[in-house]
Amino acid sequence: SGSSTNSNGPISKPRRVMVIGGDGFCGWATSLHLSNKNYEVAVVDSLVRRLFDHQLGIDSLTPISSIQNRIRRWKALTGKTMQLYIGDICDFEFLSEAFKSFEPDVVVHFGEQRSAPYSMIDRSRAVFTQHNNVIGTLNVLFAIKEFSEECHLVKLGTMGEYGTPNIDIEEGYLTITHNGRTDTLPYPKQASSFYHLSKVHDSHNIAFTCKAWGIRATDLNQGVVYGVRTDETTLHEELCNRFDYDGVFGTALNRFCVQAAVGHPLTVYGKGGQTRGYLDIRDTVQCVELAIANPAKPGEFRVFNQFTEQFSVNDLAGLVTKAGKKLGLEVQTISVPNPRVEAEEHYYNAKHRKLIELGLKPHVLSDSLLDSLLNVAIQFKDRVDHSQIMPNISWKKIGVKPRTAPVQL
Amino acid sequence: SGSSTNSNGPISKPRRVMVIGGDGFCGWATSLHLSNKNYEVAVVDSLVRRLFDHQLGIDSLTPISSIQNRIRRWKALTGKTMQLYIGDICDFEFLSEAFKSFEPDVVVHFGEQRSAPYSMIDRSRAVFTQHNNVIGTLNVLFAIKEFSEECHLVKLGTMGEYGTPNIDIEEGYLTITHNGRTDTLPYPKQASSFYHLSKVHDSHNIAFTCKAWGIRATDLNQGVVYGVRTDETTLHEELCNRFDYDGVFGTALNRFCVQAAVGHPLTVYGKGGQTRGYLDIRDTVQCVELAIANPAKPGEFRVFNQFTEQFSVNDLAGLVTKAGKKLGLEVQTISVPNPRVEAEEHYYNAKHRKLIELGLKPHVLSDSLLDSLLNVAIQFKDRVDHSQIMPNISWKKIGVKPRTAPVQL
Ligand SMILES: NC(=O)c1ccc[n+]([C@@H]2O[C@H](COP(=O)([O-])OP(=O)(O)OC[C@H]3O[C@@H](n4cnc5c(N)ncnc54)[C@H](O)[C@@H]3O)[C@@H](O)[C@H]2O)c1
Ligand SMILES: NC(=O)c1ccc[n+]([C@@H]2O[C@H](COP(=O)([O-])OP(=O)(O)OC[C@H]3O[C@@H](n4cnc5c(N)ncnc54)[C@H](O)[C@@H]3O)[C@@H](O)[C@H]2O)c1
Repeated sequence: SGSSTNSNGPISKPRRVMVIGGDGFCGWATSLHLSNKNYEVAVVDSLVRRLFDHQLGIDSLTPISSIQNRIRRWKALTGKTMQLYIGDICDFEFLSEAFKSFEPDVVVHFGEQRSAPYSMIDRSRAVFTQHNNVIGTLNVLFAIKEFSEECHLVKLGTMGEYGTPNIDIEEGYLTITHNGRTDTLPYPKQASSFYHLSKVHDSHNIAFTCKAWGIRATDLNQGVVYGVRTDETTLHEELCNRFDYDGVFGTALNRFCVQAAVGHPLTVYGKGGQTRGYLDIRDTVQCVELAIANPAKPGEFRVFNQFTEQFSVNDLAGLVTKAGKKLGLEVQTISVPNPRVEAEEHYYNAKHRKLIELGLKPHVLSDSLLDSLLNVAIQFKDRVDHSQIMPNISWKKIGVKPRTAPVQL
Repeated sequence: SGSSTNSNGPISKPRRVMVIGGDGFCGWATSLHLSNKNYEVAVVDSLVRRLFDHQLGIDSLTPISSIQNRIRRWKALTGKTMQLYIGDICDFEFLSEAFKSFEPDVVVHFGEQRSAPYSMIDRSRAVFTQHNNVIGTLNVLFAIKEFSEECHLVKLGTMGEYGTPNIDIEEGYLTITHNGRTDTLPYPKQASSFYHLSKVHDSHNIAFTCKAWGIRATDLNQGVVYGVRTDETTLHEELCNRFDYDGVFGTALNRFCVQAAVGHPLTVYGKGGQTRGYLDIRDTVQCVELAIANPAKPGEFRVFNQFTEQFSVNDLAGLVTKAGKKLGLEVQTISVPNPRVEAEEHYYNAKHRKLIELGLKPHVLSDSLLDSLLNVAIQFKDRVDHSQIMPNISWKKIGVKPRTAPVQL
């Protein structure tokens, strides 16, 4: 395989990186970035995310090419190749063949259903989400054990696993003194959608296999990612990344920028005090590269909180309003009934030192808003589907019936 | 339905109890006990446990009747009827029909793949276990939300969810002070098999639905159950409960009693310092009845640690040796290589006050050993399959290939 593995120590120079979910938002940007840094990259993806878009009648704000054309274009521009394996990681035969053929030193696992609202549409999507994510990850763990025991698993988790406890959020573990005795235990989890729960399940499953089988893993508890441009995606329009702004897959800040661009008031859910960690997509790719370059030890289950700044929803609305003004946009804000079940005012202080210690140089939102977000939203504002702007999935109204009302055209 | 529900308070007198997994070890004893106490009982079971036994070539030490004959015999003896729904709760259409037809006030959910070694046989059983347990429980939650919102879920968890932390184990929650702030959070989980992990996943999923939908639930984190006889199962041989002693489904104490009865040395795994909570099957049925009679409030996720005494494996071996002597048995003990990955010497102090406060009157092991365990083992010792006595599933050797070597006859 050309990799330099060492059976009782870390892989000294990991080179072969399998990116599961490599056609998605984080995965595509990461695949390009790693390929650019001369890693051998294989994209593994079922393309199911493109199917969700078709089924829900939503689309990326930015026009995106097929994965085949993306990879061809990258080769044409840079001479660098990427392997492509199209299939579902819940299909273990497929996954095994991909492992045996590519022989990864590292697996970066982005390949999950990642929308909280999607997981709250109906019973069958809730079940799909937990099945797809939990069984897919179990299969990845078994494939590593069987075919590539030294392989480092870099798994995308979410800051949402922690919920909003009234104490500081640490990176994965918490040292607890109780009745005079002390132990360092997994940080208690309080997820608040079937999607976020699936990540909690994954984390527990991975931690167990690290202990029982000696798997080396890094769980990246990522905050909300914003932005679309990276050094590589801007090289050619066929490399352009997706930009989700709809009520199902769009994350808070992307949605606000599109709303500002089309003159729709920013839709703050409830009181707007909901505070979370955020990061630029350019920092996602940096973080993953840092995790790869500094692998976990065999048997180690390492957890990094992957975000750069904390904001409340009201903070975000304020920042978008201010940046909009600079671009001549008149931005209003309205409060809409919160479709989620979550605290709207709460303490939030999450640690995020470990990636900084490894060398992460964060981008800050106030800059990115102007140079990579609002202007993208404005550039493509004619592509905005106004019917996708309001949220329409309620945490409480979820029922067992498939949401298959006749499609509104 | 005859039940007295109250749309904004607890069900004052829950009467209609659906017992999922009612053909199993805990479920059958509980169904009989509740029926005897004049609850209306419906047994829901796919009978998949009987299939596992056939496939693995194992059998209950005690001869057990079909579920149909069990229920017929109970009716003949007492005049009491039980509804029977045979199907898989992962099949939501089946589960919906059972809910709509029976209209439960309470669901007692025992219906899971419950063996840690089974979940560690191979990849496909690991995946089956998590799928069966997690998706089955999700379906139960959706069925309650859709068809029976006031219904109280009494869900069987396991003490194994907590692992063996170096601090006291509390009942479900832990009040933590950290950097000068305090919160009460879910107790951190450290499960150590794919089975135990499935229970951790269930607990998180259930907690979320209590919060998001107002479901009322009691999670019974049960210790290791021993024994076979209850007041009802002893009424007739067709009511007899199962007694598992094999390396896959047999729990520690049952296995030791069978080993003592057939003159096999007691097989202590490793150092034998592994300490766990234990309870008599007669206490399982009492605990479930107490949980039903004192329901959780709407939105409450209540956790009880359901066990009565703590023992190390060495303690158990000592007790069986002593009790065996009284019955004229010469009992030896050997240490066998531990097939599991677990601490063999550790701190263990788990709280279990809440069920006592509700009125639980525990049986103690030293009595049960003589009046319900060793004598049962001796009575049926001619039925013991000696090839099932040694453990043969290793936590580390689990692979992706299905374990389907030609069956040894
Ligand atoms: N985008 C964010 O703000 C954010 C925040 C925190 C964590 N994350 C995590 O990062 C990862 C990537 O997120 P994203 O925004 O790029 O999502 P995305 O939907 O754009 O990409 C996910 C990709 O995985 C693929 N996939 C899903 N299930 C698969 C399966 N069973 N087999 C093969 N491929 C499969 C999809 O087709 C898709 O291309 C996810 O795990 C997500 O939970 C994202
Ligand atoms: N026996 C113990 O020592 C012990 C200890 C702690 C917790 N528990 C828990 O108590 C519960 C009952 O344990 P048990 O020892 O009676 O197990 P068991 O295997 O004897 O019974 C489980 C029953 O559930 C049924 N079942 C499984 N999956 C099903 C599905 N998808 N649909 C319908 N029915 C299904 C099986 O056919 C079986 O009859 C389990 O949840 C177990 O985890 C048991």
